[in-house]
Parts: sequence; C-alpha cells; structure tokens
Amino acid sequence: MDERLTWEPPVTRDLTISEVRLTPILVADPPLLNTQGVHQPYTPRLIVEIVTADGVTGLGETYGDTGYLDLARSLAARLPGRSVTDVNGMFAIDLPVDESQVAGAVDAGGLRGVQSAGKLRLSVLSAFEVACLDAQGRAFGLPVHALLGGKVRDAVEYSAYLFYKWARHPAGVPAEPDRWGAALDPAGIVAQARELRRRHGFGSFKLKGGVFPPGEEVAAVRALAEAFPGHPLRLDPNGAWSVATSLKVAEELGDVLEYLEDPTLGTPAMAEVSAATRVPLATNMCVTTFGEIAEAFTKDAVQIVLSDHHYWGGLRNTRHLAAICAAFGVGVSMHSNTHLGISLAAMTHVASTVPDLHHACDSHYPWQSEDVLTERLTFTGGSVTVSDAPGLGVELDRDELARLHRRWADDDGSLRDRDDAAAMRAAEPGWRTPVMPRW
Amino acid sequence: MDERLTWEPPVTRDLTISEVRLTPILVADPPLLNTQGVHQPYTPRLIVEIVTADGVTGLGETYGDTGYLDLARSLAARLPGRSVTDVNGMFAIDLPVDESQVAGAVDAGGLRGVQSAGKLRLSVLSAFEVACLDAQGRAFGLPVHALLGGKVRDAVEYSAYLFYKWARHPAGVPAEPDRWGAALDPAGIVAQARELRRRHGFGSFKLKGGVFPPGEEVAAVRALAEAFPGHPLRLDPNGAWSVATSLKVAEELGDVLEYLEDPTLGTPAMAEVSAATRVPLATNMCVTTFGEIAEAFTKDAVQIVLSDHHYWGGLRNTRHLAAICAAFGVGVSMHSNTHLGISLAAMTHVASTVPDLHHACDSHYPWQSEDVLTERLTFTGGSVTVSDAPGLGVELDRDELARLHRRWADDDGSLRDRDDAAAMRAAEPGWRTPVMPRW
Repeated sequence: MDERLTWEPPVTRDLTISEVRLTPILVADPPLLNTQGVHQPYTPRLIVEIVTADGVTGLGETYGDTGYLDLARSLAARLPGRSVTDVNGMFAIDLPVDESQVAGAVDAGGLRGVQSAGKLRLSVLSAFEVACLDAQGRAFGLPVHALLGGKVRDAVEYSAYLFYKWARHPAGVPAEPDRWGAALDPAGIVAQARELRRRHGFGSFKLKGGVFPPGEEVAAVRALAEAFPGHPLRLDPNGAWSVATSLKVAEELGDVLEYLEDPTLGTPAMAEVSAATRVPLATNMCVTTFGEIAEAFTKDAVQIVLSDHHYWGGLRNTRHLAAICAAFGVGVSMHSNTHLGISLAAMTHVASTVPDLHHACDSHYPWQSEDVLTERLTFTGGSVTVSDAPGLGVELDRDELARLHRRWADDDGSLRDRDDAAAMRAAEPGWRTPVMPRW
Repeated sequence: MDERLTWEPPVTRDLTISEVRLTPILVADPPLLNTQGVHQPYTPRLIVEIVTADGVTGLGETYGDTGYLDLARSLAARLPGRSVTDVNGMFAIDLPVDESQVAGAVDAGGLRGVQSAGKLRLSVLSAFEVACLDAQGRAFGLPVHALLGGKVRDAVEYSAYLFYKWARHPAGVPAEPDRWGAALDPAGIVAQARELRRRHGFGSFKLKGGVFPPGEEVAAVRALAEAFPGHPLRLDPNGAWSVATSLKVAEELGDVLEYLEDPTLGTPAMAEVSAATRVPLATNMCVTTFGEIAEAFTKDAVQIVLSDHHYWGGLRNTRHLAAICAAFGVGVSMHSNTHLGISLAAMTHVASTVPDLHHACDSHYPWQSEDVLTERLTFTGGSVTVSDAPGLGVELDRDELARLHRRWADDDGSLRDRDDAAAMRAAEPGWRTPVMPRW
C-alpha cells in the first residue's frame, strides 16, 4: 500500500510575501541610569509586519534608530514575491550597509559591544525572521516554539532588572508620568526590587551598575543579599571598571553573586578578570557576534553569554549560539534592551526551546508602560508562560501602534536615535560619555 | 483594523503521533575494503515511519544493528500521543542505554570514532527527528529544507566515494551480483573513478584508504591526480597511520589533496599532524559529538568537520554543528556510511540550508543497488537537486521494504550487526581488527 492513498492532502497555503509594513514608533521610557547616561523619555522601536498572499500577518520588533530603519526599508523592498519560509535566503540578501559609518563605534545607547555593519544587518534581519516565523506559525496553527523544534519548558523565568533611576525626567523635558519613584542608593534599590517582586514575582535580581562609584554599588548588592537571602544576584556595570576594580568587586561580592556581568571592556581584560576570580563572568558586550566567540571561549574570558535575538540575528541564530555555548561548557542566558511585547514573546518562545538555560533571562519589559499589543504579556512568579497559540501568540493593537507612530512622526528628530548621553545633558549640561574604565 | 478579521483561519492538522513503525532490513553491499576489514554482503538498516492521527507518514533511516534497533523500539513505544512538532521534547526522553555496553569501544563497522551511550542515543533519535520533519513537511506542503529556514542552493554536490574492492564477496558467502569489478591498485581505482564520474558526473574524488601500505595509496591518489587534473582529491585511511606516516603522506600528496581525512587517531595525534603540515585535515572520527569539539578546535586539530546527521542527532543538530564550525573558522562537509535514499534526501535537505558548505559531501549511495524508494535519487553533474516537494520528497516502496525486511527476518543473526572484520575472515580466516596505527 502506498501511503499517498491514505494521506490527507497537503495543506496549500500561499506563503508568498505580498506586503511588508514598517512602523517606527517612540515608546515611553523611564529615566533609567547607566554608565553612559540616562534613558531618554521616549525610545525608538520599529514594528515589522510581513503579510502573505493569504492575508496572514507576522510580527517582528527591533531597534528603531535611523540606521536600522533605513536598512529595514531596503530589506522590506526586496521581500515581496519571496516566501516567508525562505528565511536563510533572506539572510543572504546583499544589503547596503555603509561599513564606514558603523565600524568601530561603540553603540551610543545600546551598551551591546562594538558596532559593526554585520551586527547592524543582523539586528534588522532578526525582526524580519521573527515576523516570518510568526506568519508561518499563524498559517499552520503552530506556535513559534514548535517551528524551532518545540518547547522543553512551559514557562521561561526572567529576572528583576533593577536600575538606579531618577524620580522623573529632567524638568522641561516632555515625558510620560513615572509611577516608580527614585532609586539612587541601596535602600532605593531594595525598595524597587521589592516592588518588582511584588508585581511580577521575580526570584532573581540584576542591578544595572556603572552609575556610581563601585563601593556604592557593592553596598546596594549587599543590601539586596540581605533583603533576599539565597536569591540569585547579578551586577552589570557595562564595562565601566578596570581589571583591578573588577577583581576587587568580585572579591567583595563573591559570596552572593550568581555572576558578574561585563565588569570590564574587551575580551583580553575580561580574560584577565576571569583568570583571577571564581565569580562567573557574563557578557553581552565582548561576545555579541559569532566572530567574537572563538577568542573569548579559547581564552575562557566568559562563563555565560547573554544572548539577544535582536543582534544575534533571530531565533534560529539564538539556538545556534546556545549550541555553541553548550559545546564549550559556557552557560547561556538572555540580554535585553528596551523592548515591547512582540520581542518578549519571541524571547520566550526561543528560550523555551533551549535545553541548557540555567539562568533567568533579562527583560526591560516591566519598565515599559506602553505596548503595541491588545493584551500585555504578564509575569507569574517571575516567569512568562510559553504560548501554544499560533505564531508568537500576540495580537497587534493598531490604534496604539498608530498613536506611538504619530509620536515618532511628530518628533523633530531629536529622539529618533537613542542617545543616553544627550538625555543626561538635559540634567547635567557638561555631561560627556565617560572614558572607560571609569573606575 | 484587527488583522484577525482578514486572516485565513489557521490550518488545523492533527499532528499527534498515532503509530510508529520500525522495519529492520538487510541491504546488499559490495565487498568494499577498509582498514578494519570489508563490508559484509548485506548491511542492516532501520526504516522508521511515524504516522500522525491525520494519516500522514514521515520517513527516517538509520543504523539497523541490534543495539540501535533495541533503543529505537524503546523510543517508538514512548511516542504515540506526542506531536511530531515536539522534537526537542523527544530528545529529552530518558532512554535506557546501557553505558557499560558501549562506552569506550570503537565502533566495529562504522569507523566513526569512539562509541558512547550518547552517540548511540543520537544515532537513533536522528531517524525519528527526520521522520518528524518529513511528516510536518507533508502535513503542511513544505519541503524539509523550508522547516530548517530554507535552502540557500538548488543542488548539493557530492564526491565520488572510491573504494578498494574485490570483484566479489568470498566464495560460499551468499551475496547479490556485483557489477563493479575489482579495484586493488592505482589503475583499478582510476577506472572506478571514471565509471562513477561517467554515471553520476562527480567532480571530486575521495579514496577510502588504510587498506594497503601508504605508498600504494599515495600512488593511487597520484594516478587520480593525473587522470583528473585540477579536481579535488581526498584520502581517508580511517586513522590507520602514525603521526610520522601521516606527515610523510601529507608531504608527498600536499600539492594535490583538497584535504587529508583522519590520517591518525585521536585529537592529540591529529593536532600534532595539523601543526606540522599545511594540508587541511578533515575528520569524522575525532570530532563526532558536541563534547569533542572544544578540545579539537582549541588545539586546531582539524580544519574540516565531516558532519553526519545520523550520529550528530538529526538535521537541526547538523545545522548547529555547522554554526559552531563557522564561528571557529572550521570548514564543514558531510560524512557517509552505507545508507539508502531516505538518508540521502535528508542529507541533501540539510546541506542545502548550510551557508558555509564549501566541500562536496560524501555518500555511499552509488554503491547501493537496492533502495526502499519508489524512485531512486539521482546525481546530475555529481549533485542531487534539492526537492521542493512536501517533506523529504521521497516515497516508500512497501513491496521492496517488505522484501528487504524478509531478508533480515530470515537471517540467522550473523548479519544483523555489521562486522567488517568478521566479513574479512570469510576470505582470511586469521584476520583480526588491526591494531592502530597499522603503519
């Protein structure tokens, strides 16, 4: 008997891309401090919609700064007529990235390592990959995790992302109301941690450091350790410290840190720190591309890579990265920049498929009061439940998308490229991006 | 407008596994020589069929020896009720592998490195993964390559796999007729290469060595270089040589070899050879698992990894391996054991999706006179065209499957576990698996 006789006929869906919609938006962001400055009151994001001939729409989200938007427009123009399943082919499209404009520059706001044309390219392609996977999932009634081989856990744990912050953006700067209040010392950080835990149930805590002299940040982590005994704690100064300072902090906090994140800049310096401490080092700054892996792993410079599907080039690349880490005995977890619910859904789907995920992932999502979804994602016990609905399992709120796009369209250009140092100058007119190491 | 209003409804296919059929078979194999002995006249393979509630059947193929078959039966019993999309979950199933029976032993016939429980497990799971992908593809009308992100080439190039061989299996041993004749010296190897090229159009040539003293095999490769000037040539003695012999051969053939494959056994010895020659080294013996990668890459022991989806654990793992190789600047190509068309289709689908595939893949397929497909796959100009039909794009010939299964069922057990040394003893009664290095 030939099994063709007993088959249901294959589904015939027209997966040809008929339209790509790009919507740059500005989303409200609280005055969160980092070593380069402070978040601006509004941050650019780009929402990608890929529509198939059958009318299925897939969603993606990435950085919305001008360079990303320009490249996204070039890519979008090339896609109609291609299939949403032809993702590898999409990655092979020759895109016009001006290498001279990005090479060697440190990303102004993202704090995610050295910029390069390749990383810019992948940061754009990733949103299109997610949109293609969302469209495939919706077309076939499969959740995105199933397109990646299927979830191995039903919920993905996130950490509470703690920030030093002002009570409000500087006077005279238009901004949304802030309900969080200031956090500028150990007591403020502990209070913020308690509130994030109360609202979302987080069990791990990460403090964005590099803002105050290391002793103050050590005191804040100590205060967290007292307030939350036994809970995993992390400190991330975004490379603001010298090797000596990094080692001093590692020694002072070695008994309470799950890991120390990017204490110093560059693989050689990280390797020096790594060799002299037993505190695990994590990074989203010295290992941010496939090309940076070999040196860092060979030198044992990092013990945990914080992946980010945006700049690693999507969900399949994130899985490749996790496989590389597993082969080298390096841990993997997840980094976050300011993002909305489409990306949180994407992060959750891919994280649910990675076997060796032993650390809670980072997410800025609790800090975002605005989103473009009809229903926000929620954290329960610090975790996001993995959706089994078709695609990413999220729906676009077109009214809200239009409102946030109008904000972008109405902007005079000053907010269309994230610049944490410029935002800081609104409060401290002489502020310049600090020379590293700061301490 | 909410896009839900304009969607086609998601397809609802019941992808629940209702049945798994395992069919061990014996397939004819010519008397191909290698350093451990000679191929037996019949080789065990296992055909896996995974049937969904909708009646869609996915196909997979792997080693059919008893240990694999036993494990496959344990796995098959656990699958009904699960989804064919839940592949990662399938890989997490706790299977009863008796570590003591496999650990440390060198595979008797496969010449694919040190056996381990993990490799045995993956060698079984891989066939089930392929069958799950085939079923998904058939259910949704998508080729398997599309489930892996899409092909980046329309055809996959294979090399001519040259073997020293006898004209026929030893007298008194039941066997199928052999149309190839003997090849036991340079002239015989060149004639075989010409015939394979005439029939299939191959442009690359790989000689399975380790059979005769190295001087004879060097002479054969020299003869190939004269007969096919400019064509990539490879020599693979399966680790039969010492470091000194490996370096001597590398020096003698450095001007004509694309790469030298597993000249010597083990990563330390391969690293020693690698450090002293500019001839690239390839392997399917010292890097055969994810756990073996770090040491080999850190020591620069190999420049090309020959992947094999059977023992690396399927098509997604093959893509992970390729990503690891790319990150470390190591080339990737594809290894082969005796296999049929289901596996050739799977190899072709995954190879079509790997961007950095710069070497022709190996395949024994031209040596297999029997297959379980209604239509054999064909090589055109040495390449297999990537199928865009649903799933793998191959159909099972149930009559032929039944015939080859009867051969297995009728066997007294002597052929159910491949043993090249035992086959050699039919011609040379005192033959024992050689102690390595042989030369």
